Amino acid sequence: MAEKITPRETDYSQWYVDIVLNARLADYAPVKGCMVIRPRGYALWERIQGVLDGMFKETGHSNAYFPLLIPESFLRREAEHVEGFSPELAVVTHAGGEKLEEPLVIRPTSETIIWSMYKKWIQSYRDLPLLINQWANVLRWEKRTRLFLRTTEFLWQEGHTAHATAEEAREETLRILELYRRFAEEYLALPVLAGIKSESEKFAGAVNTYAIEAMMQDRRALQAGTSHFLGQNFAKAFDVTFQTAAGGLDYVWASSWGVSTRLIGAIVMAHSDDKGLVVPPAIASTEVVIIPIYKNETKERVVEYARTLHRNLRGSFRVELDDDDANSPGWKFSEWEMLGVPLRVEIGPRDMDAGKVTLVRRDTGAKEAVAADGVALRIKELLAEIQKSMFEKAKDFRDRNTFKAGSYEELKKLFEGNGGFVEAGWCGSADCEAKIKEETKATIRVLPLTGSDGDAGRCVYCGKEAVVRGTFARAY
Amino acid sequence: MAEKITPRETDYSQWYVDIVLNARLADYAPVKGCMVIRPRGYALWERIQGVLDGMFKETGHSNAYFPLLIPESFLRREAEHVEGFSPELAVVTHAGGEKLEEPLVIRPTSETIIWSMYKKWIQSYRDLPLLINQWANVLRWEKRTRLFLRTTEFLWQEGHTAHATAEEAREETLRILELYRRFAEEYLALPVLAGIKSESEKFAGAVNTYAIEAMMQDRRALQAGTSHFLGQNFAKAFDVTFQTAAGGLDYVWASSWGVSTRLIGAIVMAHSDDKGLVVPPAIASTEVVIIPIYKNETKERVVEYARTLHRNLRGSFRVELDDDDANSPGWKFSEWEMLGVPLRVEIGPRDMDAGKVTLVRRDTGAKEAVAADGVALRIKELLAEIQKSMFEKAKDFRDRNTFKAGSYEELKKLFEGNGGFVEAGWCGSADCEAKIKEETKATIRVLPLTGSDGDAGRCVYCGKEAVVRGTFARAY
Repeated sequence: MAEKITPRETDYSQWYVDIVLNARLADYAPVKGCMVIRPRGYALWERIQGVLDGMFKETGHSNAYFPLLIPESFLRREAEHVEGFSPELAVVTHAGGEKLEEPLVIRPTSETIIWSMYKKWIQSYRDLPLLINQWANVLRWEKRTRLFLRTTEFLWQEGHTAHATAEEAREETLRILELYRRFAEEYLALPVLAGIKSESEKFAGAVNTYAIEAMMQDRRALQAGTSHFLGQNFAKAFDVTFQTAAGGLDYVWASSWGVSTRLIGAIVMAHSDDKGLVVPPAIASTEVVIIPIYKNETKERVVEYARTLHRNLRGSFRVELDDDDANSPGWKFSEWEMLGVPLRVEIGPRDMDAGKVTLVRRDTGAKEAVAADGVALRIKELLAEIQKSMFEKAKDFRDRNTFKAGSYEELKKLFEGNGGFVEAGWCGSADCEAKIKEETKATIRVLPLTGSDGDAGRCVYCGKEAVVRGTFARAY
Repeated sequence: MAEKITPRETDYSQWYVDIVLNARLADYAPVKGCMVIRPRGYALWERIQGVLDGMFKETGHSNAYFPLLIPESFLRREAEHVEGFSPELAVVTHAGGEKLEEPLVIRPTSETIIWSMYKKWIQSYRDLPLLINQWANVLRWEKRTRLFLRTTEFLWQEGHTAHATAEEAREETLRILELYRRFAEEYLALPVLAGIKSESEKFAGAVNTYAIEAMMQDRRALQAGTSHFLGQNFAKAFDVTFQTAAGGLDYVWASSWGVSTRLIGAIVMAHSDDKGLVVPPAIASTEVVIIPIYKNETKERVVEYARTLHRNLRGSFRVELDDDDANSPGWKFSEWEMLGVPLRVEIGPRDMDAGKVTLVRRDTGAKEAVAADGVALRIKELLAEIQKSMFEKAKDFRDRNTFKAGSYEELKKLFEGNGGFVEAGWCGSADCEAKIKEETKATIRVLPLTGSDGDAGRCVYCGKEAVVRGTFARAY
């Protein structure tokens, strides 16, 4: 199978597509820009959903479901929002055999429909905070698409919270940003920069957008999650006021935040190699695959032994047994490496006689023989080691590809070369930001959460005093 | 709160709406025929999803995700399918600021898009069976809608399986029908008739449709799940052939099956009463609510005691504590009865001193005092009793409202009266079926799975020899 994968060095984009298709994570759909998420891809999404959903519930959020279709007029109520999203809308003009009086758009995000409902549900400070999340599909008509990373339709979660004070809404925004950071690092083994977006990069309708940004193996940035402080923008657009504890009337404060099936693309791009998919154990749908190795005369006892081991491990691990006769062990090794299962257990007759099995790590290829009676414990240790070392490898890669640019010449030279994350001073002007983007294709991925700590130096573009040091990168 | 609920006897439809709105399960959306599923409603759906998803996986199914939008031409490939669904389609004609070359319909069901992909994925008998399920939203532009029971957009799961033989596809169809029956009876406490649909009631594009049918408290039938044997209809429409084990070429055989958020409406309608929602414990998002009863001077120790109990029960039950000072115990009793929590624990200072707590069943209102140190065990027993007795009550109601009609006069009289399930002979002619529907509004809900066992008597309408005895009812 491995020959199907274009090496990263030859063509990074093709390598990515080859992995997604050959690991059967997704396939192209007959509708332009859409994809089908196949069972092995969807199983990753189910793991992501399971973990995140637990984290949302622990922090007091409930799930709900709001309609797919939104009256076009709703989007127009928030000026920046409609400006940002109208080029990407899919519009339903006919339904039930008739032309609709008002066109309906398929949600590109749900702030407007949700705030139209919050107006009904929120009257008093006693109704706050309202902490709702939704798992849903959304549509944004994208011109250039790429499996998982940018598709016309995608799956995501979108949290929409309502609060009595600006401070509480800001706290929520940052609580979720931190939750996303922890999830990306601890489960996806993806080191991320958490920070704030510049004005030009923020969500249409937000006061501030916060994001986590990861580095892919081609040194480009990928925005892996966003959390927005919406101020009172949507409350004002939908006239959502509440009676305060002091007896006054105020508009409600808001946050919204989301991650999507794009995370699956991030996992693929950050960790995989030229043999196929590599997935961190914490998110792998199958952690361990058992492959019996036998000839005709040893088949029965080896397969029997493998089945027993499979039964024994099933209570503790997500484990599969590949005892298909139609394929050779060598073929299976390649196949399961392609599919990204973190740990392989090989069982041959000689191993059996010596009371041992062989464990092979997907991430490093390292092999070891272990005593059969200690195998569960060793698997547990190895999965934890793989998880840790995948994170460290990705972090080391990012750190080695993070640079400081003291001048615009330095910054340009870095992006003419291999690129990476480039820290540089910025005066805060949208003009300088736009010029840098135009000339280098690099954008400010994040500004530090803490703002500038002390001297930010000079703006890398105009040379005026910098207000902050930003991280520049080319991005997906 | 109870005064907000219209009694069933006064207006059954309004009673249903009052429960859904006041128990905060759902709300009307600003788009015609759509609803918002609120957190307490969505929590029921999450329980339904969790249990069913486990059952699907145990029987070898995987989840995947297919696009929302389907090229209009796909539906036309299966003649019955397009005829059945085109009156209900919502059509996207514009996207990304431009008119689309071919209109896209929002999926009313996904057979066509899925079989267009199966054509790519299935080549050989070794690729079969293919057992895929999807959790998704679908849209059907309905003229008359009702919260949960019939909404323009709804959430559901749709299984789509591909098999090498007709026999295997039929087995799958019936395996899922039985899985649905077991789920409805064991979890939703909903006794159902499992059977086969007449030609006029089958799914557009199926060879046979099987269904489970439940009786609501107004004696109407509600179709709670369907499983279709699709024959080779969609394989032929999308040219999906496979190499058989014998080396020949054949079209693939198929099943599809689904249940939807309509099940939440079924739970409400089958079990609730004039005080509010009643939910079987197995599906309740909260099984137990603890309500401390205190005055100022006893508050501290009673609340402390309630909190300790809450902590102790949390590991074993889905339990909430209502220690909100703003409402009286009486108000809380009504409120939690409205919300349908199966079991209430009351704790007052006198109970405490006697080492007891009071348990109150939502379904019967029965109260009992139990020793505090045995409370977890007793809660467990009571929840099981509630589950069982809710099923038995519903079954008893159905049985008392199931009749046999020997003549058309008898059948008509039954439907002029209270209605119910009416068993009667049928000659198999669509004409007789249509006349009965026109004159009594009753349809054949199901025909027995076994076919006619022996003498089916005479057709209740035309008097000719009956081929089968069907169950007639008015339906949602």
